[in-house]
Amino acid sequence: MSHNTFGHLFRVTTFGESHGPQIGAVVDGVPPRIPLTESDIQADLDRRRPGQSRYTTQRQEPDRVRIVSGVFEDPETGEQVTTGTPIGLVIENVDQRSKDYGDIRNTYRPGHADYAYEAKYGIRDYRGGGRSSARETAMRVAAGAIARKVVPGLVVRGALVQIGPHTIDRNRFDWDEVARNPFFSPDAVAAETFAAYLDDIRKSGSSVGAVVEIVAEGVPVGLGAPLYGKLDADIAALLMSINAVKGVEIGAGFAAAALTGEENADEMRAGNAGAPAFLSNHAGGILGGISTGQPIVARFAVKPTSSILTQRRSVDRTGAEMDVMTKGRHDPCVGIRAVPVGEAMVACAIADHYLRHRGQVGQTPQWPQQDS
Amino acid sequence: MSHNTFGHLFRVTTFGESHGPQIGAVVDGVPPRIPLTESDIQADLDRRRPGQSRYTTQRQEPDRVRIVSGVFEDPETGEQVTTGTPIGLVIENVDQRSKDYGDIRNTYRPGHADYAYEAKYGIRDYRGGGRSSARETAMRVAAGAIARKVVPGLVVRGALVQIGPHTIDRNRFDWDEVARNPFFSPDAVAAETFAAYLDDIRKSGSSVGAVVEIVAEGVPVGLGAPLYGKLDADIAALLMSINAVKGVEIGAGFAAAALTGEENADEMRAGNAGAPAFLSNHAGGILGGISTGQPIVARFAVKPTSSILTQRRSVDRTGAEMDVMTKGRHDPCVGIRAVPVGEAMVACAIADHYLRHRGQVGQTPQWPQQDS
Amino acid sequence: MSHNTFGHLFRVTTFGESHGPQIGAVVDGVPPRIPLTESDIQADLDRRRPGQSRYTTQRQEPDRVRIVSGVFEDPETGEQVTTGTPIGLVIENVDQRSKDYGDIRNTYRPGHADYAYEAKYGIRDYRGGGRSSARETAMRVAAGAIARKVVPGLVVRGALVQIGPHTIDRNRFDWDEVARNPFFSPDAVAAETFAAYLDDIRKSGSSVGAVVEIVAEGVPVGLGAPLYGKLDADIAALLMSINAVKGVEIGAGFAAAALTGEENADEMRAGNAGAPAFLSNHAGGILGGISTGQPIVARFAVKPTSSILTQRRSVDRTGAEMDVMTKGRHDPCVGIRAVPVGEAMVACAIADHYLRHRGQVGQTPQWPQQDS
Amino acid sequence: MSHNTFGHLFRVTTFGESHGPQIGAVVDGVPPRIPLTESDIQADLDRRRPGQSRYTTQRQEPDRVRIVSGVFEDPETGEQVTTGTPIGLVIENVDQRSKDYGDIRNTYRPGHADYAYEAKYGIRDYRGGGRSSARETAMRVAAGAIARKVVPGLVVRGALVQIGPHTIDRNRFDWDEVARNPFFSPDAVAAETFAAYLDDIRKSGSSVGAVVEIVAEGVPVGLGAPLYGKLDADIAALLMSINAVKGVEIGAGFAAAALTGEENADEMRAGNAGAPAFLSNHAGGILGGISTGQPIVARFAVKPTSSILTQRRSVDRTGAEMDVMTKGRHDPCVGIRAVPVGEAMVACAIADHYLRHRGQVGQTPQWPQQDS
Repeated sequence: MSHNTFGHLFRVTTFGESHGPQIGAVVDGVPPRIPLTESDIQADLDRRRPGQSRYTTQRQEPDRVRIVSGVFEDPETGEQVTTGTPIGLVIENVDQRSKDYGDIRNTYRPGHADYAYEAKYGIRDYRGGGRSSARETAMRVAAGAIARKVVPGLVVRGALVQIGPHTIDRNRFDWDEVARNPFFSPDAVAAETFAAYLDDIRKSGSSVGAVVEIVAEGVPVGLGAPLYGKLDADIAALLMSINAVKGVEIGAGFAAAALTGEENADEMRAGNAGAPAFLSNHAGGILGGISTGQPIVARFAVKPTSSILTQRRSVDRTGAEMDVMTKGRHDPCVGIRAVPVGEAMVACAIADHYLRHRGQVGQTPQWPQQDS
Repeated sequence: MSHNTFGHLFRVTTFGESHGPQIGAVVDGVPPRIPLTESDIQADLDRRRPGQSRYTTQRQEPDRVRIVSGVFEDPETGEQVTTGTPIGLVIENVDQRSKDYGDIRNTYRPGHADYAYEAKYGIRDYRGGGRSSARETAMRVAAGAIARKVVPGLVVRGALVQIGPHTIDRNRFDWDEVARNPFFSPDAVAAETFAAYLDDIRKSGSSVGAVVEIVAEGVPVGLGAPLYGKLDADIAALLMSINAVKGVEIGAGFAAAALTGEENADEMRAGNAGAPAFLSNHAGGILGGISTGQPIVARFAVKPTSSILTQRRSVDRTGAEMDVMTKGRHDPCVGIRAVPVGEAMVACAIADHYLRHRGQVGQTPQWPQQDS
Repeated sequence: MSHNTFGHLFRVTTFGESHGPQIGAVVDGVPPRIPLTESDIQADLDRRRPGQSRYTTQRQEPDRVRIVSGVFEDPETGEQVTTGTPIGLVIENVDQRSKDYGDIRNTYRPGHADYAYEAKYGIRDYRGGGRSSARETAMRVAAGAIARKVVPGLVVRGALVQIGPHTIDRNRFDWDEVARNPFFSPDAVAAETFAAYLDDIRKSGSSVGAVVEIVAEGVPVGLGAPLYGKLDADIAALLMSINAVKGVEIGAGFAAAALTGEENADEMRAGNAGAPAFLSNHAGGILGGISTGQPIVARFAVKPTSSILTQRRSVDRTGAEMDVMTKGRHDPCVGIRAVPVGEAMVACAIADHYLRHRGQVGQTPQWPQQDS
Repeated sequence: MSHNTFGHLFRVTTFGESHGPQIGAVVDGVPPRIPLTESDIQADLDRRRPGQSRYTTQRQEPDRVRIVSGVFEDPETGEQVTTGTPIGLVIENVDQRSKDYGDIRNTYRPGHADYAYEAKYGIRDYRGGGRSSARETAMRVAAGAIARKVVPGLVVRGALVQIGPHTIDRNRFDWDEVARNPFFSPDAVAAETFAAYLDDIRKSGSSVGAVVEIVAEGVPVGLGAPLYGKLDADIAALLMSINAVKGVEIGAGFAAAALTGEENADEMRAGNAGAPAFLSNHAGGILGGISTGQPIVARFAVKPTSSILTQRRSVDRTGAEMDVMTKGRHDPCVGIRAVPVGEAMVACAIADHYLRHRGQVGQTPQWPQQDS
């Protein structure tokens, strides 16, 4: 991936800082004549938007997306569709709360990129995290909304499966539950545990990490490639590129290390249309870097927000030792809002490989597992 | 990453199948006038070579690398150095044991890419795994040997920290031990446990997974970029692209999900030359996608070899149900030989970002943490 | 080059259509702490702006550029500088003259991309040329203004050396004259010829082609690479990517075909600082794809505007035959406004190779020819 | 383009020096199940091979290509086909005539890249031109042979249309004549003129430039993209990347500068299958960067070989002035052997855009002009 661009055929470039006038993205390579309106994108953005519960930052941003290029009325249907040219997306920054940045400008906050960033560039837009702000993830979600439309039948959903030490109960996993609680938890009982736990964390000015699971269904078989174009390698890169992510796994993931070959093998029986029906999915839908037609299952770990109300030891730009405490609004668990972002990243990876596959192989990818 | 190429400025392209006449690589973008001989590369290749203990495949390959381009005698020193042109690397395949592939050619082996691969391309070189063979990783190791020379002072080491249910004891972690046992275990006691456990696994014709840890020291501060050019995103992609890898983590990794912000913060005190001295390394040497000067710590999970002597249910190319058992030589734990491969991938990612950094920022990266 | 992105380290992505709300660009990979304000860019944009003489289209566009990201106050000087993050540039479209597009929407105009475009995408934003409009070149000029600042000492200038059958007299070539006439002609006498000729062309509703010459001085020696990273290959691609360009040449160009080796050889004598002083520049500053330190000289041919007031035979979207005449404002010679666009393209190519060179070779490029 | 790689989906990476053990290429992204044998490639290589007449260099190279990966027996037909994995190509260097390079190693030859190359890298493999040798073009031709097979129905042919001051007569243009003379001249009469002229040039130890014309027929409509993915921009880059090329033009090219809009417009009438029939082809088969279905016509200018028997003034590596004369075998007109190389470059550009088109647009490109 380039510094601010990802994807080969479905390509996304983003720009903008937390406290600049706007953030934006250019989504290039989108097939022509796909129906696309701002409200298609807005729906996903609204799921990511801050300030919707007491568990996420109180920054108030309408996050209203504008499509400024790449769409036009279809010559036959008259509806607004993509034209095959780059889709420009813009969101104005509204809540650039003016404040005194005097302390943050000279301080290296532990867990933040302040020091590394400044050691690299010799300059840092310290207002609200600048380019490193989680605000940029809005553009990822917007791009993901377009990616979903590129692959017919694709459904990508995410859920929070762990907050701090608390995990969901897989027996209660219910996708419908995800929209009913402020944690994207698929387990209603766990959502209550999360709420109680996170209230404590929030009140104490602390923060905590989380694990997010993304499941993509309706993925055609054959996407990816054996070596460096592995579908899982691209998913890993895109999930790891989300702010605060420290780990990524596919299917059985790290647990596969403790399995034997007998346990790990996803056996097959005759399925529909000559395709195999898999009897399990330890592979997480990807074998040898190529999609199998099974659901793609990826998980990623999000570290606790580094902005906390407890003083931590640090140094400032001059190298002098001091103590730091990050005041102001913040997410007690950034993992929550990472759920729609993770969905978007997986959708983008799949859309890119969908186009790459049909470029090389010359036919629209097939879904032999679809109706099994 | 493209299908068979990775890296931006330090770029590696590989080719070749398990049972073709040769495998090879083109390493492009290497700075000129770096001393490089075949024996520099051979040393790393020898660590990866199969058939060195009863715990790895018995395929006998000398893995003798030839440099066929990109080096010449230095105009001043007369020693063989890089010229800045692409370095061509070739390894002849010697042990292409002729055998009857009649069964494997029509069978989809569980856990292998057979089905996905054939659904994608409509054709598959089934001899020894074809392009998907672990044999290709020899070229990764060769490229990694060059990458190490690109970054002055860089030391990248790997160790096996888990086999099946058995993990090392961190209190006994000793890099010197790694070379003394056939598992790359940094813990001599664990090596004995691994030996006993893996003997059982091997005798029963089974296989097991593993976790590998890679540590890179001497990494300058400032490599990487805030968004899609994150150093950890590229490391994640390259490690995930290794055969059989199902998970990747940096620093505290998945364990970070259970930490609070207070626990996870790597506090700083005044260090050398105005740079901070970090008091811990939960970040694994990377914050906001940029190296901090601390050691980079990455781990990856390798699934158990899918080739086992127990029959598993499957289907053949016609869709007919049948049972599969993979005869012949194989690794009971492919995770072992993945250690030098993982080192190579991390070295390549760092070398690429080292060149990218000095391209954009215009000065050789610094190591302010070096002498702390 | 990707569809809407060019460059490796100095990377430019553009978006926007002629009659959409805005056009924009993302300039990525710019080194940090380079002073940059909107007026730096505006100066170049103003040279390209339409409606400044009767020889260019009468579309009235202020072409006021806004920098929406990637700049911040320098920690030491306090002036506005680049931060190393992507620079977002936006120009609002103002003069989207509402009119009846009924005829153009269904017509394939000869010389325009109408048919090819629609055959490709199945849809076409026909308003003012949509994505194919010369309006996009404003973003190229803006990016070029940044590129100029990336390479210290770089001066890139352009001149119109031919309109229709009329060429300049090389003996009267004067860079200072370029700004004094509406043709960017370096020859004051030729400018008068051009004026008289183009008045006739314009009045008759016709159009005519042109040749533009770009000269880059202050280019360090050593930029480029021997094979596919040739500096001249990238310049050729970027110049050919400008609307209506049909030919590109470097140095002696097509005339070199008629030269002998003796005539074409640029002989050398001892120059400054151990570098050769070239006695001629048939090479146009590039040998074997690598800059020599001499001025880079490139020329490109621009075809006549396809929008003319004379009826031409064509077909419509249904395949029915009809006659086409393009009414409304247009450039009688688009080659004129191509001058600053050509400068920008050459500047971008040089800036990209400047960064790539120091990435691979590890030192700032040198200018041994500078003071000769 | 990267330094030693070109193409997006149809990607070619080359390596090797003139006097190393071998030269090679990796052709990646080729669609699976295309019949391909070494003799398919050899046929094109034989047309480029040196030493076939007294008008080209007397280096004796069999240029025998070996395919070392990426092909396998088709599961249905049993014939050797591509597998979708990278195709490794190798040619051993045979005629590495041992000689004393004492003079060349310290000399900067006028017209050669010696100085620029060494100023860049600080080192140069001076034997036979090293990486800059025209020998590398053998791998381009090999890659082009594969590219031709990627696009069904594609026919790419080249011809020499000018040597020194002598041009062909367009009225005698006959593709069948091209194979009958040692100049690839399409005009039998001109071939005789060329022969007489070139004999003089050769005997006097001089050299001369040339112009080559490439025509691609059977190109589907719709390949390319409006901005930086223009088909003609990629053709321009690839042709300019050939050794000694100084100019590239498409269709009317530089002559378009002197045309009026009326003259230049390619009018249309109703053609077959709803597609227009063009009445002329000033556009050279590309409008707005997108193929129109008409033949693509490109020309490029090749400068005279810089190796001549006349002494030229120069300097050596120490900066001392001296005179240079290049002894030994050389081409009196490198433009001749550039004909099959130019064909290959155009074929590669078209193959890449063919795959890119079907990746984005999702259907195999169409040839509406085919049967007109």
